[in-house]
Amino acid sequence: MIRVTIWYEYVQESGQMTPEFEAQVPEGQLEGFRQWIPESTKKIRRQYPDGLMETLAKYLRKDPEFEVTSVNLFMPECGLTEELLEKTDVLIWWAHIAHRMVPDEIAYRVVRRVQAGMGFIPLHSAHQSKPFVYLLGTSGTLKWREGDFCRIWTAAPAHPITEGIPESVDLIEEEMYGEPFDIPKPDETVFISWYSGGEVFRSGCTWTRGYGKIFYFQPGHETSPSYHNPHVLKIISNAIRWAQPAKIRENFDCPNIVVSPESLRKPRA
Amino acid sequence: MIRVTIWYEYVQESGQMTPEFEAQVPEGQLEGFRQWIPESTKKIRRQYPDGLMETLAKYLRKDPEFEVTSVNLFMPECGLTEELLEKTDVLIWWAHIAHRMVPDEIAYRVVRRVQAGMGFIPLHSAHQSKPFVYLLGTSGTLKWREGDFCRIWTAAPAHPITEGIPESVDLIEEEMYGEPFDIPKPDETVFISWYSGGEVFRSGCTWTRGYGKIFYFQPGHETSPSYHNPHVLKIISNAIRWAQPAKIRENFDCPNIVVSPESLRKPRA
Amino acid sequence: MIRVTIWYEYVQESGQMTPEFEAQVPEGQLEGFRQWIPESTKKIRRQYPDGLMETLAKYLRKDPEFEVTSVNLFMPECGLTEELLEKTDVLIWWAHIAHRMVPDEIAYRVVRRVQAGMGFIPLHSAHQSKPFVYLLGTSGTLKWREGDFCRIWTAAPAHPITEGIPESVDLIEEEMYGEPFDIPKPDETVFISWYSGGEVFRSGCTWTRGYGKIFYFQPGHETSPSYHNPHVLKIISNAIRWAQPAKIRENFDCPNIVVSPESLRKPRA
Amino acid sequence: MIRVTIWYEYVQESGQMTPEFEAQVPEGQLEGFRQWIPESTKKIRRQYPDGLMETLAKYLRKDPEFEVTSVNLFMPECGLTEELLEKTDVLIWWAHIAHRMVPDEIAYRVVRRVQAGMGFIPLHSAHQSKPFVYLLGTSGTLKWREGDFCRIWTAAPAHPITEGIPESVDLIEEEMYGEPFDIPKPDETVFISWYSGGEVFRSGCTWTRGYGKIFYFQPGHETSPSYHNPHVLKIISNAIRWAQPAKIRENFDCPNIVVSPESLRKPRA
Repeated sequence: MIRVTIWYEYVQESGQMTPEFEAQVPEGQLEGFRQWIPESTKKIRRQYPDGLMETLAKYLRKDPEFEVTSVNLFMPECGLTEELLEKTDVLIWWAHIAHRMVPDEIAYRVVRRVQAGMGFIPLHSAHQSKPFVYLLGTSGTLKWREGDFCRIWTAAPAHPITEGIPESVDLIEEEMYGEPFDIPKPDETVFISWYSGGEVFRSGCTWTRGYGKIFYFQPGHETSPSYHNPHVLKIISNAIRWAQPAKIRENFDCPNIVVSPESLRKPRA
Repeated sequence: MIRVTIWYEYVQESGQMTPEFEAQVPEGQLEGFRQWIPESTKKIRRQYPDGLMETLAKYLRKDPEFEVTSVNLFMPECGLTEELLEKTDVLIWWAHIAHRMVPDEIAYRVVRRVQAGMGFIPLHSAHQSKPFVYLLGTSGTLKWREGDFCRIWTAAPAHPITEGIPESVDLIEEEMYGEPFDIPKPDETVFISWYSGGEVFRSGCTWTRGYGKIFYFQPGHETSPSYHNPHVLKIISNAIRWAQPAKIRENFDCPNIVVSPESLRKPRA
Repeated sequence: MIRVTIWYEYVQESGQMTPEFEAQVPEGQLEGFRQWIPESTKKIRRQYPDGLMETLAKYLRKDPEFEVTSVNLFMPECGLTEELLEKTDVLIWWAHIAHRMVPDEIAYRVVRRVQAGMGFIPLHSAHQSKPFVYLLGTSGTLKWREGDFCRIWTAAPAHPITEGIPESVDLIEEEMYGEPFDIPKPDETVFISWYSGGEVFRSGCTWTRGYGKIFYFQPGHETSPSYHNPHVLKIISNAIRWAQPAKIRENFDCPNIVVSPESLRKPRA
Repeated sequence: MIRVTIWYEYVQESGQMTPEFEAQVPEGQLEGFRQWIPESTKKIRRQYPDGLMETLAKYLRKDPEFEVTSVNLFMPECGLTEELLEKTDVLIWWAHIAHRMVPDEIAYRVVRRVQAGMGFIPLHSAHQSKPFVYLLGTSGTLKWREGDFCRIWTAAPAHPITEGIPESVDLIEEEMYGEPFDIPKPDETVFISWYSGGEVFRSGCTWTRGYGKIFYFQPGHETSPSYHNPHVLKIISNAIRWAQPAKIRENFDCPNIVVSPESLRKPRA
């Protein structure tokens, strides 16, 4: 049984313009957000009547190997209590416009849990979420444009995340994300995407941090149908299996080895 | 002064169908080659009146820091004598249809010289040349199609090979090379290309082997104008500077350290 | 069921000084070999009454998940027929003084099979075997000295190859292998060894080539008791599980995609 | 001219037990620190009459290519004003017991400047400094013990940081740092150290983050004579040259490419 937690920003879909949200909006953009969010809410609900992340959750729940918990930004401690994280094997993260609403304390709780072994799958606009940026150490910047056709190419055909996935997957509409993508060299560049507007993007990348495995995956613009695409869903499902912990690190001390191994070595008989 | 040697297969441009060439043509393809090569010769000469590799050589010779030597398959020892390799800092390699005409002995001479520190820049269809395949240990296979528009994107904007190069470079016509490209994980994926037909390709990749640096670069289909493109030429020129040896390894022995460093260590005063 | 093939050079243990062996001995060393090999045979038999590789095979055969086949240099086609390789999931390779007796044709057969997905575990002095060198593209050179104490440290504690292995493993006597080790940057440096004489060595390293996974592991000097050490045996057993193919590549063509994916894309309804 | 800034924690050497320092000492350790710091001050001054970092600064100032600025924790903004960072090509960082005294705001200022291109050379106990940990995304944990002999081995002999450095460097006394070292896979493992007590350590490692280059180097225990060792000093000097920025990134936006490159492409004449 793999315990999957889906973390969802949930601002656009719920339409919640809390004072905390408004306080973190960059200067001069508040009016824009006030107009854009209700529109955005409508579009997401049209595209995902069950909800964006709930569509993914529903799919994952059909897999008897997965036990899925859904949490979001508006819950106490952003839904990410120590207790829940300790019971999470793989954490999925979708976020977009409220990265700064996650307190550093919570973000570092996630970082530490990944270092201890928890798998982490940041999706789409999570490329600038705090856990992503804090784990990778880069800015996560990229180019973007709404409404392109996207073709995802497999660049690492023997990687377990590609199991059962055709050589290329067409996404009828996705947000374009373009290079240069400011990330550390991936352990493995699993997917590279082609966009009809003329850009390319390393859209599926893996890293390890401590005992934990990370897979960033580009698809998932909130008003695009990507989470209805069976290949996208299968890739996420493969990534969960791949990212589950081999072991959990309990202790992050730097031990003082007062007695050296050499002083303990017995002379050969 | 950087000593650059350009190795050129030269079969298509010269139109030389030697018995040795014919002997290595895969079964059933000889008639095809007999018709296609003269056509190919004409097209190359139209696109590159000075010759394909001579166009590149001319450009490089303008750089006072480069000393350029041109050799080809039809010279004794394929033009790659031990003497020349010892005087070569960076070897450029363009090959296409006669990879098997380079004897293993010569190919391994190149391999060993790269391991000793010589830079190596395989271009375009050199992705299946013997030195490329022997140095990387992979098959070098890929997809291809003639006659696409190509846009090269910089994925590593601080890499010295990208110096002075815009974020993207348009090639009005290039042969499409598509993923999956069977290569070991690059040290650095410097460029990723977009093709109008819908594919992507890691078109500029670096590796190291021993003391030597390798840069594979995709552009250079023999009937495409890519070696007239100033950005393509500048990238090759940057790559030569990047790939020049830091030092040369003289000895490939496995020394038997009979007296251990510990037995020689003096007790602290 | 994982089908494991153990390839063994078997020259020293069998004491077979065939004319083919003598022909490949470096000039001036034949007399030395003639004296040293019978000594070596005796020592191996004393240390490994069941045989060096047969000791490993016996251990592996206890695992109901493994089906083990043993072959050696003196069999037809060096024991490595196309048929056997196609039925091999993971190939273990121990070799020392007769690397050149493996014809290139056989070595490349192994290389191609690894590129197709077969796991490959070169042990100890296989660091200069043809398959190792041809797959990695480096010389494999290192320092050496007989008869040191060796402590293997885990540098990647969450890697599946370290499962059940303590943080450090003491080998009462091993041949010292010392840095610099001429290898391409490993995907993962799983183990680093400490030698009592004062050297260090990246003693457990992974790479991928095509669909195949490679794990080099240092212990296994023919007259040292390392293959009696339960941790060493467990590491090899872990590595077999890790290296088994995810999928097998059947075709190494470079397909000509005459009809581009874009020309086939249907306009959005 | 390379503008080098040396950042020094300076708590032990100055003996300053400020209230801010005391506030960040882990619970139950204050008394210990109160006794240990004056001892530590004495020992540092005995080993480095000019001061620990001032000894390094003096050496670097002899190089006409370097312009060296020294700052420390007790200066306003920890000495790391935006203005100084903008004029810094390479930042050296020595810290030990007061990592938490650097406010996150300052630490992220450093992180962002590295992402923009500034070189970063964390020394010794900086393995748990905020900039190190925030840039790499791992915990930086390791084993340690005072007072071992250390032998540094070159594992990447053609790397520019090893220029002029012998294959191994003996440090008569250094603090042992031992594996497992919790770091992301280095771009290059330049040095691996051997300790007389029986441990090994990846003691010289490089990474890139954005446009910036990072080199971690182990030697530099405050009461060991390592910064009097000419090879250690030369390695740091080489690393400065290697880490200087190729270019500086000015802008960290995610640009919205409203007009796609394809919509701007002119049809071929």
